[in-house]
Amino acid sequence: MSIIYLESKDNPKIKHIRALTEQASYRKKQQQTILEGTHLCLAWLEASRPIKSLFTTEAALQHLDIEKIQTLYTGHIFILSEVLYRDLSTLGTSLPCLAVIDLPRHQHAIDFNQDTLILDGVQDPGNVGTLLRSAAAANIKQILCTPAVSSIWSPRVLRAGMGAHFSLFCFEQVDLSRVLPQFNIPVYVTSSHQSKSLYSEDLTQPCVWILGNEGQGASEYALEHAQAIAIPQPGGQESLNVAIAGSICLFEMVRQRQITA
Amino acid sequence: MSIIYLESKDNPKIKHIRALTEQASYRKKQQQTILEGTHLCLAWLEASRPIKSLFTTEAALQHLDIEKIQTLYTGHIFILSEVLYRDLSTLGTSLPCLAVIDLPRHQHAIDFNQDTLILDGVQDPGNVGTLLRSAAAANIKQILCTPAVSSIWSPRVLRAGMGAHFSLFCFEQVDLSRVLPQFNIPVYVTSSHQSKSLYSEDLTQPCVWILGNEGQGASEYALEHAQAIAIPQPGGQESLNVAIAGSICLFEMVRQRQITA
Repeated sequence: MSIIYLESKDNPKIKHIRALTEQASYRKKQQQTILEGTHLCLAWLEASRPIKSLFTTEAALQHLDIEKIQTLYTGHIFILSEVLYRDLSTLGTSLPCLAVIDLPRHQHAIDFNQDTLILDGVQDPGNVGTLLRSAAAANIKQILCTPAVSSIWSPRVLRAGMGAHFSLFCFEQVDLSRVLPQFNIPVYVTSSHQSKSLYSEDLTQPCVWILGNEGQGASEYALEHAQAIAIPQPGGQESLNVAIAGSICLFEMVRQRQITA
Repeated sequence: MSIIYLESKDNPKIKHIRALTEQASYRKKQQQTILEGTHLCLAWLEASRPIKSLFTTEAALQHLDIEKIQTLYTGHIFILSEVLYRDLSTLGTSLPCLAVIDLPRHQHAIDFNQDTLILDGVQDPGNVGTLLRSAAAANIKQILCTPAVSSIWSPRVLRAGMGAHFSLFCFEQVDLSRVLPQFNIPVYVTSSHQSKSLYSEDLTQPCVWILGNEGQGASEYALEHAQAIAIPQPGGQESLNVAIAGSICLFEMVRQRQITA
């Protein structure tokens, strides 16, 4: 391991981080992204995944979490000034720690008999990341995203996912009209119109959940090709946040399977 | 109704909006806040609450949602240039619409026999607003917040609440050690340590839910004076987002009450 000081914001490594942070097209071209914060970096290393390069500040080097990272990561550590780090960071006041990683590649094909979460146009990065986190907790391993979904390897989605990405198989740019007909298990879409109650449905067998866009809801194709399910709302509010609605559905599934297990 | 053009960013009304947006202390002193976006403004007017003054742009005046607001609001409308509005707004590209309102006052005392949600140090404005939205949907009307909770009348919490605030009784700056002993109903706190499963608990009668801080969890006082409840997570993730965990609990309560109703 060596420690290298970077001082200029025009250094190519700094420009590389900034572009990975800000541009989905650059992430795709480079097949890399940024993990920000010690929690994500540690979760990544503990899943035995390699960090390409690590960036922090001189003061943070002595911090326990950074020392823990150094026991798992033996490559170069680049030290930035506080000002330069804050200028790159999107995280505010947390401990300086920023890693460049290669995007994971998996050779899996979509499994059409497995519990699956489909994001159909969910746009807010916080909602996307939170849904991945809930899916991982509920033991759903397969995630499909339509083209309109926020890029799941962006720093904001990664942050909200809190490491969930690293245990999931995620497929992006998925065409619903090509995949939905291939599923051999029930497919549900959350919708408040002409829907059955979530609580009247038997969810003990594998199934597919489709969650739609924050404003417009699910696509017409999804609504036509899936069973509409609604969460009863005795308070009569117009709708729940999509990450909340999705998680309530996933954990009703968890509940039913625990009780029948 | 009259339409008044404001052109200077040094106009006292503009400075007033900026201070209400940015400073919790100024909101408290003025007993006012800002509603941003047509959705919140309409929800407020439809709950028969008065807007003190309304700010938009010339172009937005012709928009259907702004016209709808004008049928319910008969006071002055202040027109800002696009540049000046964008400089004030925290909402990005949505339709320009910003209202000053008085903070609601309610004379109610805390009801210690009623379903209640207690936020014990929840800090992220998005989480606080989302939890208010879920509480309203689950028909919980009483919300208590400890001093560390993000100010619930800030523009960011209002936005995530999507109008839920207007149907709730919210108490801020609440001292847990003063209120918890007065409840005559079960008090639960979500915690992953030494907890009973959410799904084994009878939630058909009124109860209290305590949700803790995003990083540290609930306070020691809460953990000592409430029953710890955990949401089973077959995927083995370390934790769920607090707004997700809280909403899963509230809707398990909804489910049990629907089934026994």
